[in-house]
Amino acid sequence: MNELTTPPGAAAGDRVLTPLATASERKGLGDVAQRLTELRDWLADDLQVLERDLAGSVREQRTLSHKAAVHLIAQPGKRIRPLVTILSSRLAGRIPEEARHLAVACELVHAATLLHDDVLDMGTERRGAPTARMVYGNSASVLGGDHLLLEALRRVRRTGRLDLLDGVLEVIEQMVTAEALQLERRERFEPRRDLYMEVAEGKTAVLFSWGMASGARVGGLSDDQADVLWGIGRDLGLAFQAVDDCLDLQPNAAEIGKDVFADIREGKLTLPLIIACDKQPALIATLAEAAHDEALLASPERAEALLEQVRQTGCLDATRAEARAWSDRAVSALATLPDSEARAALDAIIRTAVERIH
Amino acid sequence: MNELTTPPGAAAGDRVLTPLATASERKGLGDVAQRLTELRDWLADDLQVLERDLAGSVREQRTLSHKAAVHLIAQPGKRIRPLVTILSSRLAGRIPEEARHLAVACELVHAATLLHDDVLDMGTERRGAPTARMVYGNSASVLGGDHLLLEALRRVRRTGRLDLLDGVLEVIEQMVTAEALQLERRERFEPRRDLYMEVAEGKTAVLFSWGMASGARVGGLSDDQADVLWGIGRDLGLAFQAVDDCLDLQPNAAEIGKDVFADIREGKLTLPLIIACDKQPALIATLAEAAHDEALLASPERAEALLEQVRQTGCLDATRAEARAWSDRAVSALATLPDSEARAALDAIIRTAVERIH
Repeated sequence: MNELTTPPGAAAGDRVLTPLATASERKGLGDVAQRLTELRDWLADDLQVLERDLAGSVREQRTLSHKAAVHLIAQPGKRIRPLVTILSSRLAGRIPEEARHLAVACELVHAATLLHDDVLDMGTERRGAPTARMVYGNSASVLGGDHLLLEALRRVRRTGRLDLLDGVLEVIEQMVTAEALQLERRERFEPRRDLYMEVAEGKTAVLFSWGMASGARVGGLSDDQADVLWGIGRDLGLAFQAVDDCLDLQPNAAEIGKDVFADIREGKLTLPLIIACDKQPALIATLAEAAHDEALLASPERAEALLEQVRQTGCLDATRAEARAWSDRAVSALATLPDSEARAALDAIIRTAVERIH
Repeated sequence: MNELTTPPGAAAGDRVLTPLATASERKGLGDVAQRLTELRDWLADDLQVLERDLAGSVREQRTLSHKAAVHLIAQPGKRIRPLVTILSSRLAGRIPEEARHLAVACELVHAATLLHDDVLDMGTERRGAPTARMVYGNSASVLGGDHLLLEALRRVRRTGRLDLLDGVLEVIEQMVTAEALQLERRERFEPRRDLYMEVAEGKTAVLFSWGMASGARVGGLSDDQADVLWGIGRDLGLAFQAVDDCLDLQPNAAEIGKDVFADIREGKLTLPLIIACDKQPALIATLAEAAHDEALLASPERAEALLEQVRQTGCLDATRAEARAWSDRAVSALATLPDSEARAALDAIIRTAVERIH
């Protein structure tokens, strides 16, 4: 498809839907791939509106804090949170104006936490570009995150629904607490699954849950149906996070060793590492030491060799299997809702989210 | 008054009202001092409820971020923002539940910005104690500020009034932007009054305005009367900030030189410094250099000598005079509202806020 024939909004859709469709084809899920391709055209207008709304969400560019906010928002993201929010609203057959606000709010909350986390974790790269804090400084990034968070709240407020506002305040509170919990693990490597789950629920799953349940509510679904979507969002979020964890560990990134060990040092637990340590307990001490071993960090070969040892435990397949269990549960729950084009689209997204390779 | 006879809540009232009463006596404003003493008893219950609400505003203590939030809230503050919010609501004769929420929200927004600013400015002391970031770390302070901000928003939301919620989101946006503007002046010393006013309005005045106007609204005053209180809040906030600026420069703090020059380096403009440079333009270059002169910072005697040169311009009296002009305007505007005990109390607070010496 060349540029002249690209329908409006397709570019935005391409970022999430094309990789999903590619993953489906690779896995031989031909029907799903076809459905995602149709979905891209079907949602083209919505996705274009979303990108326009996101671009307009930073009102001014007076200060570096505004520029830091624009820096992150302007980078191509997967936009999976707004996408599933809009589709949840479509389950009831329509996308009211409120759903668009909620979709934008989801992405803005996510973007705000990325800006803050990069400062707290001293991150240097994000979405293939230097982090905003590297370009505009730590303070501008913190304040830039605040701008995005406030705009997210204004968006939710515009729906006029206090219940949704209560919900998003609670979601952000849980995200902040999860980030704080994670930070307390700094300098310690304890591959505990209970900690992993608590952080993954707070940092990732709860925003998916809120977006999908809120989308459903403004779309006109019942409270019970919205509750089902809350659970689907949780499972999708956990599956999505687990796959992200796998991608971080796959032998395809130049600087991968450095990132993995930096994450361990920052207290970030990932599911494949936890599973690897379950399978081979000697790895616990090895990884804990490696995270502080400057010589190892300076040697990509040694780092890669250690990570290969981790992968040899079969932890990547085991993590994908857990992700698939979450997505299977989400798919089953989705099947209890009335059939519609939007349901088929969500089904395709959930099924393929766990197969994606980037 | 010994502990056994102290009425409930008097301790909280003492923090703001006793210093104000003392200032009034010192200035020979006997009536005002008497009024403030009566006010302390009259508001004892409200102030006690405020302290209880503030203490309960951090729901849990699971993480260092929660502890950082408690650290700041538990320290005795002047609580002037909640006090004038409650009194503005009392102008209509009553304090509805909503006014208490707004009063707490004002103090929480203020506390949240202090936690964030201390990280952005690398502050080491606040309210006579080590800053939360010195005790619990930068990350815990940033996230602790987020907890307080979210609780502030939940409080405003509990009033059920979307107009007040819109207002507070706009106020926080302006506070964030003002902080960002100030940070961009880092490493530069340009004593520009337009910059000072923009930052003072954003960082201080607008929260006073919102607190007083919102208190008035929930108390039952008309929109026009609430608008008058918005202006009064602005003038009181500016006067309050100008007096704070004077106190920072007065020859009574052991580490004062260091703090003043650290502020200059951080881009913090204060009104007395701007006035001093107006009166004696050669000071511009001297102060700009001094902020980077490590030898001078290490020598309290030289620092104090330079600050004495600043004071010799008469800038402290001139700043107090400007503060008095703002408070006079606030007092005049207040006189247009119906007479009541609460009006007399606000009048006394505004008159004496500019005379305070700590």
